[in-house]
Amino acid sequence: MELLNRLDEKFETHLERLKEFVAIPSVSTDPQYEADIRRACEWVREQAVAAGLTTEVRETARHPAVIAHNGFRQGLPHLLIYGHYDVQPAEEESTWKHPPFQPTLEDGHLYGRGASDNKGQILAHLCALRALHEMGRELPVNLTVLVEGEEEIGSPNLTEVLKQLAKERPPIDLAIVSDTSTAVKGRPTIQYSLRGIVIAEVFLKTAAREIHSGIFGGTTENAIRALVRLVAKAHDDNNRVTIPGFYDAVREPMEWEQAELESLPFQEEPYLEWIGASQAVGESGFTTNQRRWFRPTLEFNGITGGYQGKGSKTIVPHTASVKFSARLVPDQDPVEIADLLQKWFLQNCPPGAEIDYQKGHAGPAYLIGRDEQERALLETAKGVMREAFEVEPLISRHGGAIPIVTPFETILGAKTLLMGMGLPDDGVHSYDERFSLEQFRKGIRMSALALHRLGKSSG
Amino acid sequence: MELLNRLDEKFETHLERLKEFVAIPSVSTDPQYEADIRRACEWVREQAVAAGLTTEVRETARHPAVIAHNGFRQGLPHLLIYGHYDVQPAEEESTWKHPPFQPTLEDGHLYGRGASDNKGQILAHLCALRALHEMGRELPVNLTVLVEGEEEIGSPNLTEVLKQLAKERPPIDLAIVSDTSTAVKGRPTIQYSLRGIVIAEVFLKTAAREIHSGIFGGTTENAIRALVRLVAKAHDDNNRVTIPGFYDAVREPMEWEQAELESLPFQEEPYLEWIGASQAVGESGFTTNQRRWFRPTLEFNGITGGYQGKGSKTIVPHTASVKFSARLVPDQDPVEIADLLQKWFLQNCPPGAEIDYQKGHAGPAYLIGRDEQERALLETAKGVMREAFEVEPLISRHGGAIPIVTPFETILGAKTLLMGMGLPDDGVHSYDERFSLEQFRKGIRMSALALHRLGKSSG
Repeated sequence: MELLNRLDEKFETHLERLKEFVAIPSVSTDPQYEADIRRACEWVREQAVAAGLTTEVRETARHPAVIAHNGFRQGLPHLLIYGHYDVQPAEEESTWKHPPFQPTLEDGHLYGRGASDNKGQILAHLCALRALHEMGRELPVNLTVLVEGEEEIGSPNLTEVLKQLAKERPPIDLAIVSDTSTAVKGRPTIQYSLRGIVIAEVFLKTAAREIHSGIFGGTTENAIRALVRLVAKAHDDNNRVTIPGFYDAVREPMEWEQAELESLPFQEEPYLEWIGASQAVGESGFTTNQRRWFRPTLEFNGITGGYQGKGSKTIVPHTASVKFSARLVPDQDPVEIADLLQKWFLQNCPPGAEIDYQKGHAGPAYLIGRDEQERALLETAKGVMREAFEVEPLISRHGGAIPIVTPFETILGAKTLLMGMGLPDDGVHSYDERFSLEQFRKGIRMSALALHRLGKSSG
Repeated sequence: MELLNRLDEKFETHLERLKEFVAIPSVSTDPQYEADIRRACEWVREQAVAAGLTTEVRETARHPAVIAHNGFRQGLPHLLIYGHYDVQPAEEESTWKHPPFQPTLEDGHLYGRGASDNKGQILAHLCALRALHEMGRELPVNLTVLVEGEEEIGSPNLTEVLKQLAKERPPIDLAIVSDTSTAVKGRPTIQYSLRGIVIAEVFLKTAAREIHSGIFGGTTENAIRALVRLVAKAHDDNNRVTIPGFYDAVREPMEWEQAELESLPFQEEPYLEWIGASQAVGESGFTTNQRRWFRPTLEFNGITGGYQGKGSKTIVPHTASVKFSARLVPDQDPVEIADLLQKWFLQNCPPGAEIDYQKGHAGPAYLIGRDEQERALLETAKGVMREAFEVEPLISRHGGAIPIVTPFETILGAKTLLMGMGLPDDGVHSYDERFSLEQFRKGIRMSALALHRLGKSSG
């Protein structure tokens, strides 16, 4: 196809742009990079201008966002492309084989902090837009591009930006986010569902003070014993969560989901090997991918109690605490689950102990593809990916949360398509982050095709 | 009795000596007090010289000990009086109402670091010896006095000193240690049994790395879940230790012990109130004092796993660990119990986890009073206390360990009588440490009587 060939021809130019972008150390969490954040923001704005878009730098309480659009024409669907120009810190530079902010080509990859997360992926869209503009092609959609600078610090001001956007613009029909990686190397993946989350912490107390385990030991409850008794009861021997009602809202996979799941070329052995676990352990009756994508979980994230130093201290501890998070699947109400958990922990508090229960963040799961229209959209997206990457794409759920997807739905009223270009071994949030040049090239193709085809299915 | 009256008459002089002794900041753990340690050691030696004893400063790898004796006469029993001249640090001086090393009289107490632990108590013996010497009385026993300077740092060199002592001197028949406090205020107490101890730590691992609780959660074992499952099984619902064989060697209390236990004026309410516990919790079928004195326990001292910072981190932890200590009663073999514990933890390691089991220190329990001769000795000691303190003494077990008692038995072959003069609210190892003047005065009487009477029962 001629469009795709012409994009491929511009690849050297696109790669030069990626190097420029990655060279800006736009670390959002560290105030010393304030000027670099501004520089990255401005750099993104310039790319959008070069793509023929009307641009604006939207100030927030911390780091600004770039908002760009192609003008709004009556009767066209409205797409949103979202990404972020900020990056994770690149501490312990000595562990990197190349300096994190001196982008370096090696083995068909560009190495550097942010190369994959998210500079390479959002730039693929900006390159596609600029190339289409340079070719004189008019988009068959109304388009808003939003590139924020606070994703790596939890997008604290994004809600505010989205609320303004909802007021100022025509309704958005579909958001496209490229900030994920493929489920399996070599098979581009559309993620159509995310798990929700409920976070909480239990602080358990059995006495006013730590006491001597010899003089007093054996006569009052030990905070660690009380806590482990409580926590051990939260799962049964089949690794099912025992909290009443926890699974009530969980639905069976749809037929098409089951089919996709079964056709996914997943190998458990390398999966376990990477984790370094000797065996798969999870809810009885489910496979590993069912457990992480279709089933809710209750995981303990941290436990603390009594003496924390080296060696021994012969005390009976009076306090102990555990941090945990439940991962939710679609149809589970996070507020309801948060209440169930709290009720259960308080009701099961062992004699001689008292509990201070601290609720944390709660967010819903996400799902696209339950009705015919959404199914059709997923099929179109699959076609886009198939053509751009020249291989059959996968469509799968994702076990984690991508927090922006929820406000896109609740504030903008838009479903999101997660069309990531990253590979599982890109090293995002780790050292030696890199982006595959092949994925970059094909990601640009994917963006151009998506802009032409997804509007039609999204109305 | 004239002897006691004459001791009482010298009390002002004795009190002046106590002030002098407490004023020396002989903190053993902190090298900056090195010179004070030497000064305190020399001060003790001078007291022993003034009591007519032959003295020696025995150097060790760190702080010296004072060894004194009254010459050895054929056919007399050999008593050992043990104490220590070193003290705990007195950090956070601002929390003290009087400077810790400026001994101050208030409300019938002398306030200062070490006043009770152990300067006041060992000095009571030295004052009694000096007074008896000044009265021209010859002791009816061979006597060795040992005052070390390393008790508060775990007596690292005491074993060496005792081994030399065992070579150089006639066998010791009985050790008298005044380094404990009364079980109940106003009732002097002889402790005739101590609990032993077995210490260990379990390091549990479920994977090579911490993983994301969304992307991977629910598919491999969570180290905290594995650990709490394991640890929660160590006790049953009756708070009995479930480890097979744990209670096998435990004996019923002797008849006389049961009688002493029942006559002990123990009130559970203020006991729980001091701890700040809402209720007594322990092995079913036993009272609080049975639980802490006659029953072995397994207490968890510390637990750690996963994220330890503030807030949440949504990970599946791959490591978790627990520190624990078992308190043993007489007849339980610490080596055997240490092996039972290790075997049980390794055998019960949950699927998907592996355990690195680290054995720590193990020491036996202590008991005097099982045969007629020892019973008689306890009765004599009780008579001594009754007369010195003018109130009926108590005789009870003690739930903790006093480490020196074991080498006294294993190296010197001597049983120990714990004839403490301290009160439960002396503030030892805490701030505002103090020693009751009344206890000091009566302690001196007790020492004089003990020197005259205990030799006869100890042969």
